[in-house]
Amino acid sequence: MNDLQIRRATADDLPAIVAMLADDPLGSTRESPEDLTPYRSAFRRIEDDPQQHLMVAVRDGRTVGTLQLTLIPGLSRKGSTRAVIEAVRVHADERGSGLGTQLIEWAVDTSRELGANLVQLTSDAGRTDAHRFYERLGFTGSHLGFKLQL
Amino acid sequence: MNDLQIRRATADDLPAIVAMLADDPLGSTRESPEDLTPYRSAFRRIEDDPQQHLMVAVRDGRTVGTLQLTLIPGLSRKGSTRAVIEAVRVHADERGSGLGTQLIEWAVDTSRELGANLVQLTSDAGRTDAHRFYERLGFTGSHLGFKLQL
Repeated sequence: MNDLQIRRATADDLPAIVAMLADDPLGSTRESPEDLTPYRSAFRRIEDDPQQHLMVAVRDGRTVGTLQLTLIPGLSRKGSTRAVIEAVRVHADERGSGLGTQLIEWAVDTSRELGANLVQLTSDAGRTDAHRFYERLGFTGSHLGFKLQL
Repeated sequence: MNDLQIRRATADDLPAIVAMLADDPLGSTRESPEDLTPYRSAFRRIEDDPQQHLMVAVRDGRTVGTLQLTLIPGLSRKGSTRAVIEAVRVHADERGSGLGTQLIEWAVDTSRELGANLVQLTSDAGRTDAHRFYERLGFTGSHLGFKLQL
């Protein structure tokens, strides 16, 4: 269990990442792992944006986790840069292994190194296990997250 | 009330924007309108990032509102781009004028034009008036927003 590597995703990681996005009670209705075309276009947009850090966790040559970290410069809180974590997924075989914690700790450490003063994320109100997980890692569920589908 | 203009912020707008960020029950403890130095550095970081849209609303030559819109390309939801709204403020003199609605409608329309499929924001759990406001505009408070101060 010591050979975990968290590294930047490449286009070759897309099938494994999309499979993880789809293997989830909410994701299963929202993703199309059988057609990677929209994901390939999106990957190019992510690669072209220096504020995006799309990461994979790899163990024994297998892609077992992913998250995306975005840095957002801002004026509020005395000109703070925020880091936003999105699309955190851990492969079903790895749940309970501590990999989720390692991914979030990577994101928090990297945010600090990149000059962010705040790390934020939203979690679906129904994911109560995830809420306890983020609270254990020091996050405070102080906000309501609003979404509008276009 | 017809001459409202929503335009990109310039460095000259910083004093008015920071005054609005500070004139708020939560913002008053977090901002330093008497020292704009950190805001000027942050403004340069915002200007250098093409995904940032820091806007002001101007009426009769006065800066009366602000928000920041950020576009985040992503893989989830079939490669959706998300738009994130942060730091929405309306000048105390303008509250109840419909300016908040105009600002959010601007952000939603612009997000759609820029190819986003989802608009999201978080609002402090204590801001119940804001929650009703976002629900009236079609947003769903489906998520919990977690923050970690670094």
